Amino acid sequence: MTAVQHPSYQSYQPHGLHVLADLFDVAAERLSSAETVDHLLRRAAEAADATILHAHFHAFGPGQGITGVLLLAESHISIHTWPESGFAAVDIFMCGNAAPQKALDVIVAALQPARTATQTVARGEA
Amino acid sequence: MTAVQHPSYQSYQPHGLHVLADLFDVAAERLSSAETVDHLLRRAAEAADATILHAHFHAFGPGQGITGVLLLAESHISIHTWPESGFAAVDIFMCGNAAPQKALDVIVAALQPARTATQTVARGEA
Repeated sequence: MTAVQHPSYQSYQPHGLHVLADLFDVAAERLSSAETVDHLLRRAAEAADATILHAHFHAFGPGQGITGVLLLAESHISIHTWPESGFAAVDIFMCGNAAPQKALDVIVAALQPARTATQTVARGEA
Repeated sequence: MTAVQHPSYQSYQPHGLHVLADLFDVAAERLSSAETVDHLLRRAAEAADATILHAHFHAFGPGQGITGVLLLAESHISIHTWPESGFAAVDIFMCGNAAPQKALDVIVAALQPARTATQTVARGEA
């Protein structure tokens, strides 16, 4: 049991925005540390006024990528990185009043990709 | 350190498929148990030949939803449920040779939504 209230429980409208962002040509050293990536995603969640329920970041080994997720009361933020390709795949799914674009802005500002390809998908539209 | 190899590390091509599925009109009792949903997503990962690195499922409380994720060597499967609305939002992101549609098939067969809206997004396309 938890004191965290599901944001959409009162409204019965589980609508949310799911932002998928591909980040290209990121410096490898920004994509290789689980600790750094964990800290970055926490800052991103904070910027979006989201509530973190759980965090886990896995490092595949020296010079390899990170795969990790923040579970949020508002849904989740995930990241998967390939430092050897300078690539990171981010997804940010938020319901309620959280602002996924604010989270993405924090991530892009920190990772400084040369190019970002973003798609936003509305979830739960009947 | 882990013995799990990042699937795309050898190919330097971090391409993958990201399947977003909205499941409508699901019986509430299928969406309320963290243990049941955890077990279902593990079966889905297995069907897709994916390797589970980490699992976490959060229950918001009696009659409320579940939010959870499997981190995979191939990326992740997440689910967020709203039993009060009969709604579940699933996303399945898999790189390498894993087959996200096979995972979704297992989830849909178990949850039996009256309607499913699915979008598949190619990730990492330069």
